[in-house]
Amino acid sequence: MSEQRRRRGPERAAHRGPSAIPQLPTRRVRNPYPQMALLSADQVEAIHLASMHILENFGIEVMNARALALFERAGAKVDHATMNVRVDRGMVEEALKTTRAAYTLTPRNPANTIHLGGDTINFTLVAGPANVHDMERGRRAGNLRDYQDLVRLAQHFNCIHMLGNQVCAPIELPANSRHLDTYFANLTLTDKCFHVSAIGRGRALDGIEMMAIARGLSLEEMAASPGVTTIISVNSPRRFDEMMAEGLMTMAEHGQSVAVTPFTLMGAMSPVTLAGALAQQNAEALFGVVLTQLVRPGAPVMYGAFTSNVDMKSGAPAFGTPENTKANVASGQLARRYNLPYRTTPGSASNAADAQGAYETMMALWGAVLGHGNLVYHAAGWQEGGLTASLEKFIIDVEMIQHIMEFLRPIAVDEAELAVEALGRVPTGGHFFGEPHTLERYATAFYQPMLSNWQNYEAWREAGSLDATARATRLWKKALEEYVEPAMDADVREALEAYMARRREAIGQGEP
Amino acid sequence: MSEQRRRRGPERAAHRGPSAIPQLPTRRVRNPYPQMALLSADQVEAIHLASMHILENFGIEVMNARALALFERAGAKVDHATMNVRVDRGMVEEALKTTRAAYTLTPRNPANTIHLGGDTINFTLVAGPANVHDMERGRRAGNLRDYQDLVRLAQHFNCIHMLGNQVCAPIELPANSRHLDTYFANLTLTDKCFHVSAIGRGRALDGIEMMAIARGLSLEEMAASPGVTTIISVNSPRRFDEMMAEGLMTMAEHGQSVAVTPFTLMGAMSPVTLAGALAQQNAEALFGVVLTQLVRPGAPVMYGAFTSNVDMKSGAPAFGTPENTKANVASGQLARRYNLPYRTTPGSASNAADAQGAYETMMALWGAVLGHGNLVYHAAGWQEGGLTASLEKFIIDVEMIQHIMEFLRPIAVDEAELAVEALGRVPTGGHFFGEPHTLERYATAFYQPMLSNWQNYEAWREAGSLDATARATRLWKKALEEYVEPAMDADVREALEAYMARRREAIGQGEP
Repeated sequence: MSEQRRRRGPERAAHRGPSAIPQLPTRRVRNPYPQMALLSADQVEAIHLASMHILENFGIEVMNARALALFERAGAKVDHATMNVRVDRGMVEEALKTTRAAYTLTPRNPANTIHLGGDTINFTLVAGPANVHDMERGRRAGNLRDYQDLVRLAQHFNCIHMLGNQVCAPIELPANSRHLDTYFANLTLTDKCFHVSAIGRGRALDGIEMMAIARGLSLEEMAASPGVTTIISVNSPRRFDEMMAEGLMTMAEHGQSVAVTPFTLMGAMSPVTLAGALAQQNAEALFGVVLTQLVRPGAPVMYGAFTSNVDMKSGAPAFGTPENTKANVASGQLARRYNLPYRTTPGSASNAADAQGAYETMMALWGAVLGHGNLVYHAAGWQEGGLTASLEKFIIDVEMIQHIMEFLRPIAVDEAELAVEALGRVPTGGHFFGEPHTLERYATAFYQPMLSNWQNYEAWREAGSLDATARATRLWKKALEEYVEPAMDADVREALEAYMARRREAIGQGEP
Repeated sequence: MSEQRRRRGPERAAHRGPSAIPQLPTRRVRNPYPQMALLSADQVEAIHLASMHILENFGIEVMNARALALFERAGAKVDHATMNVRVDRGMVEEALKTTRAAYTLTPRNPANTIHLGGDTINFTLVAGPANVHDMERGRRAGNLRDYQDLVRLAQHFNCIHMLGNQVCAPIELPANSRHLDTYFANLTLTDKCFHVSAIGRGRALDGIEMMAIARGLSLEEMAASPGVTTIISVNSPRRFDEMMAEGLMTMAEHGQSVAVTPFTLMGAMSPVTLAGALAQQNAEALFGVVLTQLVRPGAPVMYGAFTSNVDMKSGAPAFGTPENTKANVASGQLARRYNLPYRTTPGSASNAADAQGAYETMMALWGAVLGHGNLVYHAAGWQEGGLTASLEKFIIDVEMIQHIMEFLRPIAVDEAELAVEALGRVPTGGHFFGEPHTLERYATAFYQPMLSNWQNYEAWREAGSLDATARATRLWKKALEEYVEPAMDADVREALEAYMARRREAIGQGEP
């Protein structure tokens, strides 16, 4: 399909009809059930105390002079030679006085505002892979065309609430300005929130500025109504590098959201024990939270967790493991202890969009849901431990997310739902197909999947014996056909293009 | 591999070495976390009351004169013309005074005793498929050779606690005596508990007698120490057929376990609403429970649930749906209300051992676990909505069950696990690979999967780009090589053979 045909998207809305891919409507997803408690209250406290011990006695290395100065001014013990910062529990408690239990992110279409905190769950497109894969074209390096298709898919499916940072890196574009192209794709091909890169000040600021332009807001107005978030990936153990610290501060300065997320792979960057990894994760996450509040009290910040384990035979990272799943639940308990919104992640190490990809992702996804994750990051399209964005896996993941969404809808129990009259009317050994109670409800009674095939074996074989992965290929292609580009005023688009032109020139002249 | 080589199983135990398929040790699986509450206490009560209304006003058809007489004697309202039985809540309450909250089933190897009730979870081999499938030989009708291989696999994997009823029907054998051959395979190729067929008195009694012979017990001794169970599938709506009623009574008479399980497919045999289907399920299950206690107060009985939905476009049954998953949790709440052990089921409608098979099964499996299922029936090998036993799906399911087992192991939090010293020793930005804390624990720190592939993409591709299904083929073949037949005394085997010969002759002469 040509770019031009795609651009005419809005006119093609009428093409959506009975043959369109079924999907759930746009919905704020709430988890109405109690948080699962894998840790006792005493265990949560023991992990908290261990993390305070780490912060008070071992400290965190912060490779950024501005951050070191902020910490020093606030009373932390700073060793400038080693860039080591020790904060005490009083400073952590002080910071937690100004953090928020919940906040919103508003994109250019306010209908797609997301709620971070409380019982709301949001699911995001995978972020950061170097490669793209689909069953027809195989594996290739990230590129803008695939980037655009993947964000179109994220726009098309209502259960994807937000885009991650660079669903794949478009490596044919200059490394120092390609973030402008990906922000532009995010803003024009979708009208959902997105994650800005916080590798340094410039990239973060560009994302904030471009979202502000798209929303018609000044930076001050957007500080009062955040529109973008970032993930600050701690260089575990105990290190915030220069660029990440700078990105974090830039976001906080502008009142934009940050999820401080240690990547605590047990046995590699963290102790081999879950309790130890959680203590480390807690120390690192809270340290980042403190920094956001030193920059701007009240800056929106999430407790991020990404604790999994490695294969101890090879050192290779693993995801969707039992340990990863437990960490997803337990980290939710820690986030709640500090009254912070919780970012978590399902994942898989599978190299294919296969049964392993499905069961590993489903394991960790249940952990994310039972732990009351508010932002389920990398929820769709993650393959190969995050090295590849897979189009088929995206479809499988959307199906699994929709299963979870429907599971979380409370069961209604009232006279009509109990159907006692119908139960008395249908004879023993009979059936309910023709019952008025059934006929009134059957069209919407059950969740209708897009990927699951419920044909009998013979019909399935006659239709080509396509497994779920092969059917997923058809579905992402069909979704791209059905995709409708959200309208954008010409002057907004021009303003974005002008901003990009200005910034490209400045970057070309060596500006960050 | 020839039968003869297989028979020499016990001698081959020494062949198990470092290259053996990794698996979890035999373990009683406990779910230490609170049961998930999808229904409020009021909602549970509303469903209970609706089911009492059904039992008191609409009644259940029981196509069995002996059962009708039992109900009549106990005070139920019996209409002999329609075989309709109405019981009141008093009779249900009376029956629940003699049921047990927990009991055990003991096979010939007491180490494989299973605990039904409380926080224990048991997983069983799929039961009842007409067909068998594997990726090399395709789909074929059930037969004894495949039957034997499937029960060998169930014996080999420690996470499979029990065999279901006829993992596939060996259709080359005479229909009226093939249950003898399958019981014999269960008893000689495994030393685990199994499910006996309760289609009529004869089949149930043969299973009880043969288990008693294998354990060296009289029938009276086995009544005091149950060794087998059955599932009584209610012909929903509201009908117990002649054979099932007879099977139920035979089991209860002999003190053997029964799981009364309505098959309440929403929209077909049950109302299209979950509350209605649960009310019906509850009425039918409790009715069967009452019958067991009329036959023999104290007879071991489980609350069985199998509520899922159909595809409302085709009427085809679906499994692993959000509705099925909710029913698995909510039914656990109902079982607990009556203080009964709970039988539940994960499933999938997929025609292949693919991503759909994995995500549907994983959905319903989480429902079974969160609902505190005690007997997770059809847990391994279920494909095509139960019409086919798949060897690859068996391997995928075993992997998923093991993931769940490890998830349920509580997190340890103490000084050693918190690893604070190690956290102080590893430099910022360093790694824990060489840490004594890691080296002391790495070999057993994490769950080691058998099916998940964690190689990097290049290594995986060089090894043939095998997806999880293709790897599963290799694993079931390897497991059959590693399988060790459990030893059985020659005189016990002879006694079993003599029993079978006697019964074959009697059946040939028209005995049931």
